Amino acid sequence: VTIHRTSEENDILKRFGQRLKALRKARALSQEELAEKAGFSRSYYTEIERGKRNVSILNIVKLAECLEVPLQTLLDFSESD
Amino acid sequence: VTIHRTSEENDILKRFGQRLKALRKARALSQEELAEKAGFSRSYYTEIERGKRNVSILNIVKLAECLEVPLQTLLDFSESD
Repeated sequence: VTIHRTSEENDILKRFGQRLKALRKARALSQEELAEKAGFSRSYYTEIERGKRNVSILNIVKLAECLEVPLQTLLDFSESD
Repeated sequence: VTIHRTSEENDILKRFGQRLKALRKARALSQEELAEKAGFSRSYYTEIERGKRNVSILNIVKLAECLEVPLQTLLDFSESD
């Protein structure tokens, strides 16, 4: 499936993925550990961190719970420029 | 399509919908106006407010932009109990 996204949309997904990765590393969790904790496949989780998935609010909430951070902290990815 | 969600998941989507509705009303926008601004169909938008849609991060960002609020403000729906 080819998904067409604007560069702005790709940028949002990438920044979210980077934020997620930083929080995961701060908790010394591997991708595999966090994926399993959240009930995601490893490949799906990896794609989220790479900014390839337009993740849903329920999965965002689940990730925040697994990272034990408020939703706002996970969504705190400001513009890069 | 029947979608099975837990009551906790339904609760999250409902609280998000209520938050969205409150912010829309605070800006004196009708459902139709906000839907059009965001590029959503009226029926899709209505379902989000009713907590029936597991909205994606790109659509959440779009709604926050249309409401001219930070993402964190839109996602600030705390536990109801």
